[in-house]
Amino acid sequence: MLPSENKYLTNVSFDTVIFGFTGEELKILILEYQNSGMFALPGGYIRRDQNLLDAVKKGVMKRTGLKKIHLEQFHTFGKLNRSDPEPSKKIARGLGYELEEDNWVLDRFITIGYYSLIDYNQVRPAPNKFSDSINWYSINDLPPLMMDHKEIVEKALEAIRNDLGKKPIGTNLLPEKFTMKELRKVYETILNKKLRRTTFQRKMLSMDFLKRHEKLYTGAANKAPYLYSFDKEKAEKP
Amino acid sequence: MLPSENKYLTNVSFDTVIFGFTGEELKILILEYQNSGMFALPGGYIRRDQNLLDAVKKGVMKRTGLKKIHLEQFHTFGKLNRSDPEPSKKIARGLGYELEEDNWVLDRFITIGYYSLIDYNQVRPAPNKFSDSINWYSINDLPPLMMDHKEIVEKALEAIRNDLGKKPIGTNLLPEKFTMKELRKVYETILNKKLRRTTFQRKMLSMDFLKRHEKLYTGAANKAPYLYSFDKEKAEKP
Repeated sequence: MLPSENKYLTNVSFDTVIFGFTGEELKILILEYQNSGMFALPGGYIRRDQNLLDAVKKGVMKRTGLKKIHLEQFHTFGKLNRSDPEPSKKIARGLGYELEEDNWVLDRFITIGYYSLIDYNQVRPAPNKFSDSINWYSINDLPPLMMDHKEIVEKALEAIRNDLGKKPIGTNLLPEKFTMKELRKVYETILNKKLRRTTFQRKMLSMDFLKRHEKLYTGAANKAPYLYSFDKEKAEKP
Repeated sequence: MLPSENKYLTNVSFDTVIFGFTGEELKILILEYQNSGMFALPGGYIRRDQNLLDAVKKGVMKRTGLKKIHLEQFHTFGKLNRSDPEPSKKIARGLGYELEEDNWVLDRFITIGYYSLIDYNQVRPAPNKFSDSINWYSINDLPPLMMDHKEIVEKALEAIRNDLGKKPIGTNLLPEKFTMKELRKVYETILNKKLRRTTFQRKMLSMDFLKRHEKLYTGAANKAPYLYSFDKEKAEKP
């Protein structure tokens, strides 16, 4: 069944950019719709009886199988030319439906963008019944995305680069314990530039949100590095 | 005439927080609606044939008389409990209309928040036909605002405090030429804390977006301070 108008708010939707980090590069989750070959960000509509944020969380869970992920609102997209009924028609046709011209999903939508940073290795995204597949794509090698979804990805990246200086969001992309080198690699990948080892370490430690653990012994000849984790209590101190 | 449904997007609106600086305190523009005594942020709806940002600009112009102000989107508000038809009914009644229960303006709205920083002394806001008055109110002494408008103001302040570290937005609150002391006072008021004169001056000059002009001679015995202006060209350099 396609979503019916009276259950949802009209003219307003959400889209999500979910980032993972492979250790080398930044990837995002992209859905491919059945039989239409359309690539899209995981998104959806807001039920009339739902808080916006709850709708986004539920929608992400339904589309990707991911539970309890932290979502950050970053921008709302409202250009007139972002509305285009053709992709939605094509997707519906691929699913075996023919949409009437006045169907509410073909109307103009203003969409609210959310991003999320998750641990790439811990998640097994699962396609839902509308989609063929859900896959990680490198942000440097995305398939052709529908509507303005490319622009939404770029704006999300911009927001993350901005937020990185203020909040310790980078740790969300890593396993619970990580080395300083791994954290630096996250920052370097997001900011797309090399950072000095010593300056980076000093800055991170001065921001006081890391907890130091045991050393990581790998048996290699080089000096064993310390492991760190994100210290929620420290970070929340005023 | 009240706005008719088929000209506007449903379930989505905008609200604006327009800041001015008196030299001593931060104020925002608040509308008071005729005969209902309801206080509200200047806001409105989005025409189906308008870009979101154009709608916001036109709406601000219509409600406040202010032209060509720079607007910055900061957050979209979508909680279920922000919707309350009573204030809109009361406002309409004050204007001499009785709204039917199924009128689209009584439906749930997700609202997109924009802020603006303007030169307090240069603007003469003018009430429009729906409002009694439009006035500057100190952010520390606001009248009771309708719906979640208080929360919107707080979130706007938070956004400005955040943006202040990244962009030279503070200069928008000042006349074209200003002294370092005036700029520091803007920062101190927004951040709600005292800043060290020397550290502040060094930091501002290092960010390289100020152009130095002649000294401001007041005839007073103290040393004449330099005047500065915001240098758009410098600020836009990569």
